[in-house]
Amino acid sequence: MSTTSRVLGFSLFLSFAIGLQSSALGSDANTRVATPKNVILIIGDGMGDHQITIARNYLVGARGRMSLDKLPHRGAVQVLTVDDAQPDRPVYVADSANSATAIATGVVTSRGRISTTAGTDQDLPTIIEIASKLGVSTGIVSTASVTDATPAAFYAHTNQRSCENPSMMKDALIYDRVAVDCSQDLIRNGGLGSIAEQLLSSDLDLVFGGGLEHFSMPGEGSNEILLDQAALAGFEVLKSKKQLQTLPQGKKLLGLFAPKHLPVTLRGEEGRSAELPEPSVMNQIHWTQGEVSLPTVMRCEVEPSFAEAPSLKLMTEAALTHLSAQAEKGFFLMVESASIDKQSHQRNACGSIGEVQQLNEALDSALAFAEAHSNTLILVTADHGQAAQLVPNQSLFKDFNLPIYTPGKLSRIITSDNAVMAINYATNEFVLEEHTGVNVPVFSNEEGADILPSMLAQPDLYGIITDYLGIAHQ
Amino acid sequence: MSTTSRVLGFSLFLSFAIGLQSSALGSDANTRVATPKNVILIIGDGMGDHQITIARNYLVGARGRMSLDKLPHRGAVQVLTVDDAQPDRPVYVADSANSATAIATGVVTSRGRISTTAGTDQDLPTIIEIASKLGVSTGIVSTASVTDATPAAFYAHTNQRSCENPSMMKDALIYDRVAVDCSQDLIRNGGLGSIAEQLLSSDLDLVFGGGLEHFSMPGEGSNEILLDQAALAGFEVLKSKKQLQTLPQGKKLLGLFAPKHLPVTLRGEEGRSAELPEPSVMNQIHWTQGEVSLPTVMRCEVEPSFAEAPSLKLMTEAALTHLSAQAEKGFFLMVESASIDKQSHQRNACGSIGEVQQLNEALDSALAFAEAHSNTLILVTADHGQAAQLVPNQSLFKDFNLPIYTPGKLSRIITSDNAVMAINYATNEFVLEEHTGVNVPVFSNEEGADILPSMLAQPDLYGIITDYLGIAHQ
Repeated sequence: MSTTSRVLGFSLFLSFAIGLQSSALGSDANTRVATPKNVILIIGDGMGDHQITIARNYLVGARGRMSLDKLPHRGAVQVLTVDDAQPDRPVYVADSANSATAIATGVVTSRGRISTTAGTDQDLPTIIEIASKLGVSTGIVSTASVTDATPAAFYAHTNQRSCENPSMMKDALIYDRVAVDCSQDLIRNGGLGSIAEQLLSSDLDLVFGGGLEHFSMPGEGSNEILLDQAALAGFEVLKSKKQLQTLPQGKKLLGLFAPKHLPVTLRGEEGRSAELPEPSVMNQIHWTQGEVSLPTVMRCEVEPSFAEAPSLKLMTEAALTHLSAQAEKGFFLMVESASIDKQSHQRNACGSIGEVQQLNEALDSALAFAEAHSNTLILVTADHGQAAQLVPNQSLFKDFNLPIYTPGKLSRIITSDNAVMAINYATNEFVLEEHTGVNVPVFSNEEGADILPSMLAQPDLYGIITDYLGIAHQ
Repeated sequence: MSTTSRVLGFSLFLSFAIGLQSSALGSDANTRVATPKNVILIIGDGMGDHQITIARNYLVGARGRMSLDKLPHRGAVQVLTVDDAQPDRPVYVADSANSATAIATGVVTSRGRISTTAGTDQDLPTIIEIASKLGVSTGIVSTASVTDATPAAFYAHTNQRSCENPSMMKDALIYDRVAVDCSQDLIRNGGLGSIAEQLLSSDLDLVFGGGLEHFSMPGEGSNEILLDQAALAGFEVLKSKKQLQTLPQGKKLLGLFAPKHLPVTLRGEEGRSAELPEPSVMNQIHWTQGEVSLPTVMRCEVEPSFAEAPSLKLMTEAALTHLSAQAEKGFFLMVESASIDKQSHQRNACGSIGEVQQLNEALDSALAFAEAHSNTLILVTADHGQAAQLVPNQSLFKDFNLPIYTPGKLSRIITSDNAVMAINYATNEFVLEEHTGVNVPVFSNEEGADILPSMLAQPDLYGIITDYLGIAHQ
């Protein structure tokens, strides 16, 4: 048996086991068909417990509770990744491509892969593909480009996450330095094309996010830009948030509200990111001597460009209205707050905090929808841990009267408690921070009471969702 | 109303609310007296989700499950701390003294305090004091000195955690540098004396751990060493693990199995801790140039001194046997795996991993006990987050072909998956790492089904325990 089939076998076993458990709890396949069920899966990219605690302290204070905190059921998720060259060997820190693949397909893969198997590059069926084949409506909402790794893993299959558009398929560079080769996914080589092209050939009913630039070029072997091809593929293309107010009924929708990712809601005062502590000359001579200047404390402020694009909440509400109007067999909606992660890579604590806030506001809309529509399972989770450690503003060892300070970069933020919270970024000294390998939380509304275990592996989410929708193993 | 009374009022309200909730669920005060209930509270000091994930990867592999992971109920705990000078202002990173005080008394206090109020230094009644007054048996088991902050907060009241023995009360220094002044707690000043002396005057039925040295000196105003006073106070003193095999029935027990903290079970290969990456000269000239040598990979090995003292499991089993034999009205046992934290301060990833393993083994014994004795609530939690980040062994940005590495110190450990796990320590550059402010997990056995919410504030644990034992507000 090959490694890949072992991985697949493991996942199928899990899905099967979960299916059995759920049946034993009294659900009935016939009832399920008669009563459409909906799943709203909300992913906070990089939203580990550290990001949640930091956002809570800032937004509602140490004793406060965000909507996320009030969800009645909570578990922990083992984030699993394997080595592409040795797919039986784990890698302990994931990226968004492989972790979204685990959720979307139930299979553990290697970093950078979009719903393809580690090593063998086989396409893996996704929740959205399975659901739409069975008449369940499907949608994606993200604050990232809709071709970014997390949304892509729900509808596309490539060997590299960077294959976002036709220009990135061959002889391409990212950051002018890193070579991308997706030639095996070129249509002329028997592949499915770039991620943007795969979106257009998908059965998705609705996609809202950023990434207009990926659709502003011709498709492979065509003179027509992808935006025009989208119309031919039956998509109504939306470009302004005003268009979200009156959505055309019965149409497939592609909303692309920014050239790249959508603007975030908060930033540091005057755009400040985390900064290096500055030791005095004496301290540089010996660490017990002299003193250190820490970055000055600051508040977060509104990112001026935020108003240009729709908020995650607005997109989520529009998506729920549109999908529920047409979903005779229920729907699956994936909502991603993408820039918790992206802002953390860039050491912008205020940026990440604002995107956790966006997630909470979108969750409020999802909860209101579920209140009005029974049989709606809301799951909230993160794909992986991220840099950002909540460290003491005043050292635990302050009584030593030594200049103790943190390596890496530091932000000191005044919270809604009117107290100072210190956050350091110290996973590397590159221009972008690393992810971490910590297990991540998963939450659900009451509907998850008998469904969500206290601990699960990330691919189990696939089984939970497909079983709830009644689309597993058909 | 003073700040302190407001804090107290908040806590009492919470306890009261939890009491109501539990009554509504059908528990009955009369039944409760007839059916003794037991609580086993297991605290992993510094055991945030990061420490758990790191230990799991090492001990049972990325896909494995420890006993902790299999517990059926899980919530998250908001760790709360206040500023001593301004007790209405939060501090975002706790120490073990204030977090154990929150659990033991239901009141939020400031760092370093042992069951006294922030600012006003009032003594706060603890679970163990309330329980023993009502005839509920009580015990403490810890791998730390029994006078260390976490155990102390359950039976003592001091303004500083360092007041561990009579010699530390006045004109004392720790690490030859930091002044300790506990003169207000001196007996001659109307106080309760050092933590060791307060242990001897407590009603505890059983205390197992380290810290013999704190009892090897005369008490305040006495010529008799504390060990001899212990016998007068009714304690049978145990000093070797062999004595745990045949415990004298019906006696109070004080087991002190090491001069200071108990030895840990694992250490790095040849005693190695985390080490600094070593950049080449060219890399020191510019970060994009040259290369970096990372610490060589290693396995963990058995700490040679571990066999000298009893394991946490052995102490827990002896405690459960002893307490259950005499507990007509049930018992409360606090079990602490203390050196998850202490080893993390010292950047010993293997050390912390071994102490999570010890906690899991003690949990196995607690679960076996609860299996045989209904009405036993097991709670497992951490007091605060700790340094140690699981970072990528191979950077997410490896395709840039740059020497990307982590600030702080790094350990690269070969796990039971036969893969390399990289852990960095980067909260400060002092000789001891800081804690972090992340919220921490709490777990329970089936008995916690209707008791443990998905999110709670740390002081709520006090209410949950006293309510379950039927000793709240009597």
